[in-house]
Amino acid sequence: MEPTVGMEPTDLAYDVFSRQCPSRGTLEHITGRWGGLTLGALHEGTFRFNELRRRVDGVSEKMLSQTLHALERDGLVHRDAQPTNPPRVDYALTPLGREVAERLLALIRFVESRQDDVVRAQERYDAERGGR
Amino acid sequence: MEPTVGMEPTDLAYDVFSRQCPSRGTLEHITGRWGGLTLGALHEGTFRFNELRRRVDGVSEKMLSQTLHALERDGLVHRDAQPTNPPRVDYALTPLGREVAERLLALIRFVESRQDDVVRAQERYDAERGGR
Repeated sequence: MEPTVGMEPTDLAYDVFSRQCPSRGTLEHITGRWGGLTLGALHEGTFRFNELRRRVDGVSEKMLSQTLHALERDGLVHRDAQPTNPPRVDYALTPLGREVAERLLALIRFVESRQDDVVRAQERYDAERGGR
Repeated sequence: MEPTVGMEPTDLAYDVFSRQCPSRGTLEHITGRWGGLTLGALHEGTFRFNELRRRVDGVSEKMLSQTLHALERDGLVHRDAQPTNPPRVDYALTPLGREVAERLLALIRFVESRQDDVVRAQERYDAERGGR
């Protein structure tokens, strides 16, 4: 069993499969409930906080704020505060954030494109097992 | 702003950005804390429950069991129970699960490969903001 998912151990210094690896925390920020949708939305361009909150349907102000702070700290999102009155704050992906978002969007688009198959599988599963 | 991340709305019947869309739930099973690691591990081959539990370091028996049920219900994981004594239960990816896992692993490997940059960004962020 390859410890790094089909790559030689020497290929990678980090392994999300090991619980102590800091890359697992990064992956959780990226794929967490709101982190993934926030990165996906920012791939469309620069957003102000409230624009982003409307785009990521269902996120609370508190959760979006926490999500953006974590992604900014990881170097995936850039926060640009203009010294205007009222202050204008824009959020955009960093170059690294863009590379992450592209891979994440490939997954998101694939899942959307195959959701019909997932729904059929769920109906079969529930019919066979009486929904348990 | 494209409602489906840079694709024409007509291209997709599902949109994870809308809170009612069932594809959001599927994405959460796939990218959830344990779902992603479980799919990534199963991309290596067929596992028995306890093998998988060792591979996905840190997962509890209860969480792995719940994760596998959700992925099986979504049609991403196939559960094969042999009528032996004791019963032997193997878990493997379905063809759809394999396609999902490939896209997920592209993201996981990229995050592992850039974790050094993330750590440096976190150190800069904490130094500038006193870690708040």
